[in-house]
Amino acid sequence: MTVYLTRRERFNAAHKLWVKDWSDEKNREMFGKCSNKNWHGHNYHLYVTVKGQPDPVTGFIMNVKDLSKILKKHVVDKLDHSNMNLDVDFIPEGMQPTTENLVVLIWQQIEEQIKEHGAALHCVKLYETENIYAEYYGE
Amino acid sequence: MTVYLTRRERFNAAHKLWVKDWSDEKNREMFGKCSNKNWHGHNYHLYVTVKGQPDPVTGFIMNVKDLSKILKKHVVDKLDHSNMNLDVDFIPEGMQPTTENLVVLIWQQIEEQIKEHGAALHCVKLYETENIYAEYYGE
Amino acid sequence: MTVYLTRRERFNAAHKLWVKDWSDEKNREMFGKCSNKNWHGHNYHLYVTVKGQPDPVTGFIMNVKDLSKILKKHVVDKLDHSNMNLDVDFIPEGMQPTTENLVVLIWQQIEEQIKEHGAALHCVKLYETENIYAEYYGE
Amino acid sequence: MTVYLTRRERFNAAHKLWVKDWSDEKNREMFGKCSNKNWHGHNYHLYVTVKGQPDPVTGFIMNVKDLSKILKKHVVDKLDHSNMNLDVDFIPEGMQPTTENLVVLIWQQIEEQIKEHGAALHCVKLYETENIYAEYYGE
Amino acid sequence: MTVYLTRRERFNAAHKLWVKDWSDEKNREMFGKCSNKNWHGHNYHLYVTVKGQPDPVTGFIMNVKDLSKILKKHVVDKLDHSNMNLDVDFIPEGMQPTTENLVVLIWQQIEEQIKEHGAALHCVKLYETENIYAEYYGE
Amino acid sequence: MTVYLTRRERFNAAHKLWVKDWSDEKNREMFGKCSNKNWHGHNYHLYVTVKGQPDPVTGFIMNVKDLSKILKKHVVDKLDHSNMNLDVDFIPEGMQPTTENLVVLIWQQIEEQIKEHGAALHCVKLYETENIYAEYYGE
Repeated sequence: MTVYLTRRERFNAAHKLWVKDWSDEKNREMFGKCSNKNWHGHNYHLYVTVKGQPDPVTGFIMNVKDLSKILKKHVVDKLDHSNMNLDVDFIPEGMQPTTENLVVLIWQQIEEQIKEHGAALHCVKLYETENIYAEYYGE
Repeated sequence: MTVYLTRRERFNAAHKLWVKDWSDEKNREMFGKCSNKNWHGHNYHLYVTVKGQPDPVTGFIMNVKDLSKILKKHVVDKLDHSNMNLDVDFIPEGMQPTTENLVVLIWQQIEEQIKEHGAALHCVKLYETENIYAEYYGE
Repeated sequence: MTVYLTRRERFNAAHKLWVKDWSDEKNREMFGKCSNKNWHGHNYHLYVTVKGQPDPVTGFIMNVKDLSKILKKHVVDKLDHSNMNLDVDFIPEGMQPTTENLVVLIWQQIEEQIKEHGAALHCVKLYETENIYAEYYGE
Repeated sequence: MTVYLTRRERFNAAHKLWVKDWSDEKNREMFGKCSNKNWHGHNYHLYVTVKGQPDPVTGFIMNVKDLSKILKKHVVDKLDHSNMNLDVDFIPEGMQPTTENLVVLIWQQIEEQIKEHGAALHCVKLYETENIYAEYYGE
Repeated sequence: MTVYLTRRERFNAAHKLWVKDWSDEKNREMFGKCSNKNWHGHNYHLYVTVKGQPDPVTGFIMNVKDLSKILKKHVVDKLDHSNMNLDVDFIPEGMQPTTENLVVLIWQQIEEQIKEHGAALHCVKLYETENIYAEYYGE
Repeated sequence: MTVYLTRRERFNAAHKLWVKDWSDEKNREMFGKCSNKNWHGHNYHLYVTVKGQPDPVTGFIMNVKDLSKILKKHVVDKLDHSNMNLDVDFIPEGMQPTTENLVVLIWQQIEEQIKEHGAALHCVKLYETENIYAEYYGE
């Protein structure tokens, strides 16, 4: 019996989409206003889903407080009020901080941490706006 | 061709997380403020998804009014304005009313009812707050 | 490595559920107030999910602006402020514009367009109200 | 001491904006896609605010169940799944069912009913979409 | 020049509406399911609005972190995961914890604290569910 | 008879709160993580309310399409995907782009434009996150 548990966290960050080997025109053509050199930003809503079997005594897959602590320490504290092109150790230099890339990078930050608490990471979902979100299931 | 149809219902209930064989300290350590002896409560948002093939004449997998009636009779009328540790016949005594346990118990309440209407239950999803939800897919 | 990207669009439309070979009573019994001869309407929220591998340079599965253009041209411009029983070329005459039927019809409108942009259509999800939505995964 | 209490109700309806003395072109120019002859529709969210002094025994300004009953009987049952240009007795023939006109008409439907329950109507607020709403305060 | 600044906080609590001098029948008649002896509960969303003139250097009416600290210390820490009929020092015994009474009691808890930070309390707004909220403006 | 009409628009922008005459420590103390030198950002939700009397023929206070055009031209096109400390002509150099200052600056951008369309500006409301918003009523 597998049950899925999801925790939402939020962070606010700046970024731009900009390939340094490209001309301004090519960047503008591909990324539109997202290529503004002086950055822009978003309120990101992060949903992380873990799966497992509820413990017969506690009724928990894993303690949601522990899940929240992992997310805060390894993801939110690093991304919140950051510039994602400049400030974040787990985003490789030159990699575009698109929503698609972020869900993969966030997965890598927390997969092991969650395993140590007896659950399995199932999905990382990230809203950039109310109109756009990405998901990653680890494969 | 399989289409999925989801209906949301809501209920407001009290509960606490508390293992009676444990000391107060151990309960507090595991469950935090959720172990308050005098209870606390939530507005629960329940999303139930059924699947099937749309009927060629009506365009329905099953009539959503019937789905809503099943949910009201077998789930919402029993949980709404209840104390989930004390008042609900389908929650076994001593089982913690965590979101994880609730989605499994709700599944068991409605799986057969939905089958009788020609559709198959696909998912039970329950929000405890805007930051926490659980899902169960029946296996 | 597969990442999923979702774009939301919105449209407002009128419809009724009404089988012309049935009596008024039978229509009323099956469809309730949805059978009102003079129509009613909804604010529809459409979520379309595509999947693929993020491009190593742009970090995109496909450019979300292109996804939005496809949805606007092939779906939203045809449905927005329309009567879905009368005005829409891709809804066959006599087919009920239920949420279940609409997700299948919308899938057919956009599957090829998305393939041409190097991604694969994964899911069409349509909210009719905050309490009801349907999903289709193409099979 | 004045406290304000608000109750939300919802209804789904069709309408069009169309002045019969005008040409098609003039209607199109003023009302855009809202002038589609075959109608369109919305999910309307109605917020009605009453004011008064909380009763020292019950803590109620007025019983919110009574407020909900008034709204259902005099507003929602008449508007839900209706065509607001054709079906609703309290919308004068030829008056445009804009959000601005609707809040005034709804006010007139319920002002007396609320007074009879010992509270005063304070505001009628109506969302047509998540981007547009109107309010009326009775003067 | 007066600008208004609003901060949202959340808490989850149990309560019941029950007049001890009344019979069970009379309580049931007045309060419906809210009179369940074993309690029920809600996710409360609290919006507190202060007003003042933005400081020419900081652009702040008052530091929103200070506003949040006041709300946490004097309101949320006392109400969160509480039973509002039993556990809260600022709710008089026997006073019904209705949304209407709560906004007045919360106002009294924080009016002075906000004044000490150079702003004025303008409004306390409390959502009990997505369908019901109360507001108090201090008079 | 006065009716109020509100239009929502959205924009995504970067900013920081930073007084250049202050030390890093003092900036950090006052503004916390908002003082990050490399910026951060938000999804802003802007609600602009105008008031007037509905036209007896059109039922409009002012055409909401015109309101939207004014907001796009004078506010959203300038702020969307901008750095509000560097890129926006109507934000004076050195003025902190706090939510409180922004609502006043936005008011000044649109008051006259709305008057020219026969309505009066009533309120500018700006959400920085789901937990914080500011309002300005012009005095």
